Amino acid sequence: MHVDLGNALAETATPGVPEDALTRLDERVADAHDRIAAGMADDKFGYAALNLPETADADAVREAVEPFADSETLLTVGIGGSALGAATLVDALDSDLDCHFLDNVDPEHVTGLLNDVDLSETAVHVVSRSGTTAETLANFLVVREAMADAGVDWTERTFVTTGLDGNLRDLADEHDLPALAVPEGVPGRFSALSTVGLPAAALAGHDVEAILAGGRDGMDALADSLFDCPAYAYGAVAYALDQRGASTNAMMPYAEGLETFAEWFAQLWAESLGKDGLGQTPARALGATDQHSQLQLYRAGPRDKLVTLVRPTERADRDIPETELEGLDYLAGHSLGDLLDAEFEATEASLAESGVPNVRVEIDAVDERSLGRLLYDMEAACMLAGELYGVETFTQPAVEWGKEAARGLLRGEEWLPEKRHLGVE
Amino acid sequence: MHVDLGNALAETATPGVPEDALTRLDERVADAHDRIAAGMADDKFGYAALNLPETADADAVREAVEPFADSETLLTVGIGGSALGAATLVDALDSDLDCHFLDNVDPEHVTGLLNDVDLSETAVHVVSRSGTTAETLANFLVVREAMADAGVDWTERTFVTTGLDGNLRDLADEHDLPALAVPEGVPGRFSALSTVGLPAAALAGHDVEAILAGGRDGMDALADSLFDCPAYAYGAVAYALDQRGASTNAMMPYAEGLETFAEWFAQLWAESLGKDGLGQTPARALGATDQHSQLQLYRAGPRDKLVTLVRPTERADRDIPETELEGLDYLAGHSLGDLLDAEFEATEASLAESGVPNVRVEIDAVDERSLGRLLYDMEAACMLAGELYGVETFTQPAVEWGKEAARGLLRGEEWLPEKRHLGVE
Repeated sequence: MHVDLGNALAETATPGVPEDALTRLDERVADAHDRIAAGMADDKFGYAALNLPETADADAVREAVEPFADSETLLTVGIGGSALGAATLVDALDSDLDCHFLDNVDPEHVTGLLNDVDLSETAVHVVSRSGTTAETLANFLVVREAMADAGVDWTERTFVTTGLDGNLRDLADEHDLPALAVPEGVPGRFSALSTVGLPAAALAGHDVEAILAGGRDGMDALADSLFDCPAYAYGAVAYALDQRGASTNAMMPYAEGLETFAEWFAQLWAESLGKDGLGQTPARALGATDQHSQLQLYRAGPRDKLVTLVRPTERADRDIPETELEGLDYLAGHSLGDLLDAEFEATEASLAESGVPNVRVEIDAVDERSLGRLLYDMEAACMLAGELYGVETFTQPAVEWGKEAARGLLRGEEWLPEKRHLGVE
Repeated sequence: MHVDLGNALAETATPGVPEDALTRLDERVADAHDRIAAGMADDKFGYAALNLPETADADAVREAVEPFADSETLLTVGIGGSALGAATLVDALDSDLDCHFLDNVDPEHVTGLLNDVDLSETAVHVVSRSGTTAETLANFLVVREAMADAGVDWTERTFVTTGLDGNLRDLADEHDLPALAVPEGVPGRFSALSTVGLPAAALAGHDVEAILAGGRDGMDALADSLFDCPAYAYGAVAYALDQRGASTNAMMPYAEGLETFAEWFAQLWAESLGKDGLGQTPARALGATDQHSQLQLYRAGPRDKLVTLVRPTERADRDIPETELEGLDYLAGHSLGDLLDAEFEATEASLAESGVPNVRVEIDAVDERSLGRLLYDMEAACMLAGELYGVETFTQPAVEWGKEAARGLLRGEEWLPEKRHLGVE
């Protein structure tokens, strides 16, 4: 991964980071790296995620999915970190396996999806550490019943990733389902490169070893200076810009396959850093599409944004045919990739020209190894930023109240304070 | 549409709007409504969009798509406002027509998509007002060539929506393609309820008259007070909260089918209001999924957000089966819809409990009429907000520099200023 901070410097952007401020910040980066490295050495909660390229068991993942190798469809039943890592991988890498994610409890959507797929050719991967996640378990019960109604033996079509005990573990034991263990000490949003995120990729025929090798590339690139480590360069500059007013981070990959990556990043960034009144708000964008949607705001709206432009340096390209149509002379002899790259560079320059801070992140290609590297580096960037903010990167305490309230409501308890109304019909 | 501002008031939220400040703001709303109504009466540029429920020609739309009624797949070739309205409608309304949008120029994605569909059963709808939009025309040329390569007569499978002259109009005349006219005076992002957004819905078998009837419901509900008009209530409170520090507006529908609506809203809001250093940044979210992703930040991060919670009050529901699994007693006897509603209410209350301003928007159902109303009302809300901000709601000048630069780059011109680099490998 290559990161270019040039357009985030105070010489170009407002807000921007003076180069000497980055140099001073680098002392804190070195300290933070020490804490991260120590956490990794002890496999400490959270930091353990950065060891996954070495600790993840690719063989176990392949073995668990092997019985389902002939499936047409994979239904991953999980939510948040139990879905987004897998979705990021399979949405980026083209395959013939039809992958769906039951990561919401909208009855119309669930029914529509279950009607659309051939359940006898569908593998179901249920992912929940606790085995009690409300949305995931409710969906699993619905899927299990739909299979029964369709005369499909769900025990032949289901595998799980869960903790060492709990509902799903018991169920797997009882029915002899392939069961993977969630990695110890790894929060859901940092679990893409594990038994949580990798099975979907494995079943879709992607090279799991290469994904992990990409992670190892990131691991090898960790260093005690932001000027020597692209992951830390990104995390440090995002933090430094937020300090100076760039409270929104628009993640804008120029690759259709990385649209879900932006969503994964949004969870990683928001849930890890959004606490104690701090945290940069991630915005999900997509180049070139959002040039026709969000760019007007980024360029001419409030000066509260960092725009992160991501692109692969290699793609399978496709020529734009010659045409008789007028006004399109500039497309002649070019490919769609040329056009996309021109738009990337023009957008980057147009942001710089109006002083909007932006960072260029380049990966080699949208392939297994580069994806492993990208996810790993963004996780390391996030941990570095968490150290700089001084927040507890690996918890998400603010969502507990709502979970308890929802359960209380379903139990018929008077859980909620009275809502204030000001209705307009 | 029903809007509840209770949780946006200063008594509940920080930032929040004191009720008497809303009352004072209502005088400006009345003035703004006068300007909007006058603009509508004159069919003035931009405001003309609010007349579409009466001016859109549903018959012409149905006639244009009629030759393609047997298609398996619809490929809409358009970008920004030429794609998002149609995508919002067909993604919300379930149908058997397989709808895809070529709204990006990623060669890997385009090739993947063209390989996946049966071009002889595919209708192609090319949408560009000028007929020279780079991405749209490049994609159209690629699609046309792919059809030729597959032995399909593209002139039999293509229809267009475009201006009264230009490339696409000439092409339609030459090859006798069904051709719809883009509505006069309607910017792309306000064109969902027109020849731009409706053809996809019509071809997918949806009731175009009902969509327009929903728009007329919104038209009938326009009034000179935010307390009498849900669209203005929403636009006014979003503006008033932004003034007080809620610089981000997280649009969070609790309906999987409305995920694209959030994207449509993001374009509407960003491109219309993001100018002169002003404008609220839209964030796209989805309930309940994003409770496991963004909610931590919304609840515990910086106090710079309005959360807009949207739900249908009616859905086709699905029971959660009884279970032997432990810890799930609270799901017993409930449906997925009950769970989703409990999560909606719990999230709303949890935001209120921590003082985060939020607004509840309810529509009757995710159906044609309610969607027409929702889109219309959000357009009216946006125009009202534009009047209150004092910006030029209907233009997007800040994207022109980048467009010109991209064309210049492809022509091989030395267009861009030299980029400042600070690379980290």
